[in-house]
Amino acid sequence: MSVSEIASRAKAAALQLAHLPADTKNRALENMAQALESSTDSILEANRKDLDFAEKENLPRALVARLALNPSKVLGMAKGIRSVVQLPDPVGQVKRVTELDRNLVLYQVTCPLGVIGAIFESRPDAVPQIASLCLKSGNAVILKGGREAQHTNKKIVSLLVEAISQVPDVPPESVQMIETRAEVADMLREDKWIDLIVPRGSNAFVKYIQDHTKIPVLGHSEGLCHVYIDDKADMDKAVSVVLDAKLQYPAACNAMETLLIHENIAKEVLPILVDQLEKKQVQLVGCRRTCALAPSIAPAEKADWDREYNDLKLSIKMVGDVQEAIEFINEHGSGHTDSILTEDRERAERFMDEVDSASVMWNASTRFADGFRYGLGAEIGISTNKTHARGPVGLEGLVIYKYKLLGHGQTVSEYSGDHAREFTHRPLTPGSGDS
Amino acid sequence: MSVSEIASRAKAAALQLAHLPADTKNRALENMAQALESSTDSILEANRKDLDFAEKENLPRALVARLALNPSKVLGMAKGIRSVVQLPDPVGQVKRVTELDRNLVLYQVTCPLGVIGAIFESRPDAVPQIASLCLKSGNAVILKGGREAQHTNKKIVSLLVEAISQVPDVPPESVQMIETRAEVADMLREDKWIDLIVPRGSNAFVKYIQDHTKIPVLGHSEGLCHVYIDDKADMDKAVSVVLDAKLQYPAACNAMETLLIHENIAKEVLPILVDQLEKKQVQLVGCRRTCALAPSIAPAEKADWDREYNDLKLSIKMVGDVQEAIEFINEHGSGHTDSILTEDRERAERFMDEVDSASVMWNASTRFADGFRYGLGAEIGISTNKTHARGPVGLEGLVIYKYKLLGHGQTVSEYSGDHAREFTHRPLTPGSGDS
Repeated sequence: MSVSEIASRAKAAALQLAHLPADTKNRALENMAQALESSTDSILEANRKDLDFAEKENLPRALVARLALNPSKVLGMAKGIRSVVQLPDPVGQVKRVTELDRNLVLYQVTCPLGVIGAIFESRPDAVPQIASLCLKSGNAVILKGGREAQHTNKKIVSLLVEAISQVPDVPPESVQMIETRAEVADMLREDKWIDLIVPRGSNAFVKYIQDHTKIPVLGHSEGLCHVYIDDKADMDKAVSVVLDAKLQYPAACNAMETLLIHENIAKEVLPILVDQLEKKQVQLVGCRRTCALAPSIAPAEKADWDREYNDLKLSIKMVGDVQEAIEFINEHGSGHTDSILTEDRERAERFMDEVDSASVMWNASTRFADGFRYGLGAEIGISTNKTHARGPVGLEGLVIYKYKLLGHGQTVSEYSGDHAREFTHRPLTPGSGDS
Repeated sequence: MSVSEIASRAKAAALQLAHLPADTKNRALENMAQALESSTDSILEANRKDLDFAEKENLPRALVARLALNPSKVLGMAKGIRSVVQLPDPVGQVKRVTELDRNLVLYQVTCPLGVIGAIFESRPDAVPQIASLCLKSGNAVILKGGREAQHTNKKIVSLLVEAISQVPDVPPESVQMIETRAEVADMLREDKWIDLIVPRGSNAFVKYIQDHTKIPVLGHSEGLCHVYIDDKADMDKAVSVVLDAKLQYPAACNAMETLLIHENIAKEVLPILVDQLEKKQVQLVGCRRTCALAPSIAPAEKADWDREYNDLKLSIKMVGDVQEAIEFINEHGSGHTDSILTEDRERAERFMDEVDSASVMWNASTRFADGFRYGLGAEIGISTNKTHARGPVGLEGLVIYKYKLLGHGQTVSEYSGDHAREFTHRPLTPGSGDS
């Protein structure tokens, strides 16, 4: 089947999914969870094939670790699906009700986007996770996983499709899969049928996707996050937040890559931080003045200020005030997550207002920027877009809204011209009346 | 100045605009309104030059009519700006507050997008309208109007820029203008600095813009709207809504282009409609069965079912039931606005749930789909996108949100591992506490 056919079937399925009651979707999700639990053996068998291939091809150990499943990981997938069952239905929520006139009422109601194209690298647990979020939000999904995980992904998708097929009204084409790179290229062209692309993977991978499609992309190619230590910072908080932001999980997109320090307190805080960071094998580069204060720090190259290390490396720069910190971040940051450490409320508010990033923080680690920690229930991704959805994105990033206007035969002519009726434009409370 | 420089200055201005208080923005808007009022003569003088050019070039009369200003139209522009002053500030609204833990509170707060590129055809009144909506929402704007209106637009922009320059903290680069087609092509490439393109003009024009930029586009290239008359429709309502949807303003994007009629009532309603529509010079084409019932109707070509006439022409098709109507609309419509006429609530709800359009209506004219009529206060455009903003879009389409996390030195390490603290994830009422 061509990708175009797959996409057009997905669209047809999406039109059906859009108006399924929450119960039906949850039943399909529960079936999905049960299917994975009861087929653990066959999933692990498929996974074995992928692992054999990975061994033969000498694939990197980190990749093999992400690829490898065991019974408890499979149970974890089922548990993940059940946590999606627990989330409130994001579809059919009435966001706003306006009486335009007597017996003419406008409802703004959430609805699914339609068809999601999800492209991800090796982790097979992305399959049930993305499929369950899409189904819950009434979207059809076309999945493309990494080649290394192809047997595992194929097995999981076939189990999920069989599971949802058993629930009346849920079209099996709600979850489909493509396998080759050529098909990905085809999918990126299907802007007629596909409403959103969700890529997960390396920066270069996401950047490639963003550059090669006209379909809206929900994702971030970069996470160049800053922490700024103000001269009114509490030193204990500053040290622990900086260490957490760099060390708690350095490969994460919300880990700190550049540390800005107010010149007035650099002498005090820098030696402590250098000592602690170097103990943890963090390679440090700094501006001229930073290096002058801490001779073990190597001079930063110009490009370092725009570099996301995702590793045990950190750029350190001294700044004159919060204004300089804000300007530096807006110039060099990626609009992901930036934090100020200060006891001065005014400066903190200024920082949070003026730094143009999806998440701005006051006295907290950048590592908090995450759908689970933010309490979104589940995360489809983190977005550095300025439209649709920004920052950690949960189910609400997979829905949009439609307007429903309920009238009694009204015409616009009545509201035009010399004896025009006037609109009342009275806001009503969502929940009152019907939608 | 290159478009890249203009765009980067706009971005710098946007960063300042983002945190201006509502008062300051409203003062700038009021200055803009006054500047237009007190310079009516010089605006009309510039407009005269454009009209002379239009006459010399023999430009179409409809275009000249849109181009021509008079004192009352200029006063109308000023009034339009003052109506934007009256709107609530869309920036800084707290959408959601979540306590992640004691003393760790997350705020989701609306903020501007950044830089808007607005491209429109001849009407000079688009200049103050778009500029005021962008300023109110804290966005910088780069305007490009039609060549025919260049003197008028230039004059208006220079007045607006002078007016805002008089207000401290409002950067003059908040409103800038480009003039050539080459500059438009350059602007469409500035995805580094520009966050949203708003095109206004013909379908072909909007489609061109959508096809030539990676920047998100807010707009619609097509408005292929349907009305479906069910066999449980009230005949009086059906006739008046159909006539309104076709005739009240046939050139509008929300005018009806295709009429679907349930086969059971075609015999009854079609003759009345044909009579009334033909009296108003509407050219009718129909499916085979429609033509059999009304011999004055010409057979529709296949392509007619996908055609937006924007004119006194209408396609009419008979369908077997609401299901067929829904499927036809989802196949041939443009996702803009579609209406069902019926007294049967269940069918109406099914239609509104299953038709995948930005506006779906029950017993109301498609012509209601409009920002003013929907009570949005002002309209930046109508969107058939599935992401960000859909349907008639007011100021809320020019904002997004950021997350502000207010902590007291918390680290993610505390919430990880064996003795992890648990998140409370307690929803708080927006307005309580501070953001």
